[in-house]
Amino acid sequence: MNYSDVVKEQSGYEDFLASCEHAKSVSLLATVDGLLQWDEQTMLPAAAGGFRADQAAALAALTHAQRTKKEQGERLEKLADSSLATNGPDAIQATIRLLHEDFQKQSRVPGRLVEEIARTSIEAQQEWVCAVEASEWKNMVTHLEKMFSLKRELATCQSPELDPYDSLMDEYEPGARWRSVDATFSRLRKDLAPLVRGCFESTNGPQDAVLRGTFPLLSQQTFVRQIIEKIGFQFDRGRLDTTAHPFCSTLGPNDCRLTTRWDEAFLPTALYSVLHEAGHGLYEQGLPVDWFGLPPGEATSLGIHESQSRLWENLVGRSPEFWEWCYPLAQKAFPKSFDDVTSDELAEAVRSVEPNFIRVEADEVTYNLHVMMRFDLEREIIHGNLAVVDLPYAWNDRFEADFG
Amino acid sequence: MNYSDVVKEQSGYEDFLASCEHAKSVSLLATVDGLLQWDEQTMLPAAAGGFRADQAAALAALTHAQRTKKEQGERLEKLADSSLATNGPDAIQATIRLLHEDFQKQSRVPGRLVEEIARTSIEAQQEWVCAVEASEWKNMVTHLEKMFSLKRELATCQSPELDPYDSLMDEYEPGARWRSVDATFSRLRKDLAPLVRGCFESTNGPQDAVLRGTFPLLSQQTFVRQIIEKIGFQFDRGRLDTTAHPFCSTLGPNDCRLTTRWDEAFLPTALYSVLHEAGHGLYEQGLPVDWFGLPPGEATSLGIHESQSRLWENLVGRSPEFWEWCYPLAQKAFPKSFDDVTSDELAEAVRSVEPNFIRVEADEVTYNLHVMMRFDLEREIIHGNLAVVDLPYAWNDRFEADFG
Repeated sequence: MNYSDVVKEQSGYEDFLASCEHAKSVSLLATVDGLLQWDEQTMLPAAAGGFRADQAAALAALTHAQRTKKEQGERLEKLADSSLATNGPDAIQATIRLLHEDFQKQSRVPGRLVEEIARTSIEAQQEWVCAVEASEWKNMVTHLEKMFSLKRELATCQSPELDPYDSLMDEYEPGARWRSVDATFSRLRKDLAPLVRGCFESTNGPQDAVLRGTFPLLSQQTFVRQIIEKIGFQFDRGRLDTTAHPFCSTLGPNDCRLTTRWDEAFLPTALYSVLHEAGHGLYEQGLPVDWFGLPPGEATSLGIHESQSRLWENLVGRSPEFWEWCYPLAQKAFPKSFDDVTSDELAEAVRSVEPNFIRVEADEVTYNLHVMMRFDLEREIIHGNLAVVDLPYAWNDRFEADFG
Repeated sequence: MNYSDVVKEQSGYEDFLASCEHAKSVSLLATVDGLLQWDEQTMLPAAAGGFRADQAAALAALTHAQRTKKEQGERLEKLADSSLATNGPDAIQATIRLLHEDFQKQSRVPGRLVEEIARTSIEAQQEWVCAVEASEWKNMVTHLEKMFSLKRELATCQSPELDPYDSLMDEYEPGARWRSVDATFSRLRKDLAPLVRGCFESTNGPQDAVLRGTFPLLSQQTFVRQIIEKIGFQFDRGRLDTTAHPFCSTLGPNDCRLTTRWDEAFLPTALYSVLHEAGHGLYEQGLPVDWFGLPPGEATSLGIHESQSRLWENLVGRSPEFWEWCYPLAQKAFPKSFDDVTSDELAEAVRSVEPNFIRVEADEVTYNLHVMMRFDLEREIIHGNLAVVDLPYAWNDRFEADFG
């Protein structure tokens, strides 16, 4: 159904449509902010970061003001008590409930804080790129400290009744609580730890030597574009570009943008990061266009999102069947590279398991350890049990313990 | 001087700073709109045009509301009567006068019209790209008719005392009036017509055969980037990308973006369009950064802008000295293409004069005829003497008369 299909005679009909129109007007601005961020990470000239932070802050303030307009709050209050909210079609009930919850949450956050977070995240992102290039941690400390401090404030504002980490996690995984995630992770770690250890110690596990060599950038780009187009990513409704950190960003109902980084010496870096992001992209491109800007047109949660990205990256992309299909494309893209290799050998090579410092380049087994490590360290900082300045030591200790 | 250098004790000091801060906040939003448009022409997926038009319309409405805020008008009224406006430093006097004039003009335009123009220009631009590809004029008629009608309305709103074409021209060339431009063009045409005729009829004029061949895209990109970097375009404060129609767009004090199209069979297409746009870019990059968003930090007029772009394109770029310098770069970028050609021969080849349907690809002589033709036809439509639907016939007649 379309959001405007609600029955005209029903009580709450006009308020519902007006609320939806308002939410859509907010999402127009939010996607413009999305473009500022996408552009910042893909296109922005090196010297333009400061002004981009100003632009993002100004737009964030305007968007927040629009998002928390009093009239929308009043409409949603009325709607929440209407018969539509209890007896309407499921999608409409859910829309009312989620718009109302979100409005209440956002209204508790001061515009000044939203503006400051927008500015700081651009500034920190700019600094991060330089810090990675220079392999220099210390310039990040101030930015990260500021970001964590702002996020702690946000957590308390938006959901004062929740633990601050739960409040922040709620934006990504609605309803999830850290104690429950922690319990799940602990259970998984019990089997994962010996599995990883076994992989590291094994002398006859898969080796990735055949995936190392020279894979020219342009050939890789053609290769991965062909692959994700075949699995259904629509390039007339999306793009693929280059960034320091891969991501998928939706800037409109027909504008889903993937990014990746490339390594000319190691094929899997881009291939699996693009398959991963394309998994996100397929989910986004599959959402109902008519509902764009309203809850039924938006992703349910990061967990569901990752289920799609890792499905394509690992369950599909590392299977023998995938490589059987993909083998001719690979041979065409990289003549001679795979002359002495079969598709089965390639499918085996991409399953090698090795310690890797970088989560987005980690294999399908150790990736989970990275997620758990991040979950723990991030939470410890938010809870005030770990200082940002000590993060590298904590990270090293944990890496040593999990991967060492 | 910096805009904040105004003397603290002077009457109007606080109003001046507040007006400048307000104008800068408007320019933050205006440059975000600039990004929406740049992205639309360089990056936007094919199916995303409709939503982009919605985004641009929403942002235009917000920007207009901010631009015409009552408090800013009141401040500027007071300032215009202050001693700063008559006795302050030149840059400050000019800032007050121009901000005040602009505020009055903008305040007469309804937000609804600004929104509609933003939407229509994106829609028309999207359609234009398709129309050019399909070589199909008729789909453009509705868009152009709508655009001209909106622009006529804008003309009357913003400067009701002016002829509508003058009102519109005033945005690009402040103070210029069409009758005076027309008189200048008529004078120039007297000498230009026989000059063009002479060029066309000459049997020993420059020939561009040596510039035709195969010039691979990537080599051209490296080549022209080297050239404009050498003449001073700063890539840490700008970019060069690909579009259907070349332009230069400033998205911030350190974010000047050039675009061009490429022709692998004819070197001058991209080279001279990029030199032209880089001329605009050098002017923009040379504006005082501290004044960004205020009149002294903005280009004076399109005429001054074109004086810079055509200086680099023609006076520099088509000179023997340029080609003497550029020759080794060209040889390196296109090995063998110029083995049997001297730099003097190249400098001569780029001065060939030929009828060309497309203004941005026209040579330095006939380009002027294109400008005059556009000036006349555009004005005739605005004045209601020519219907959009008849434009192709009028264009063909005029082309035949001027170039035929």
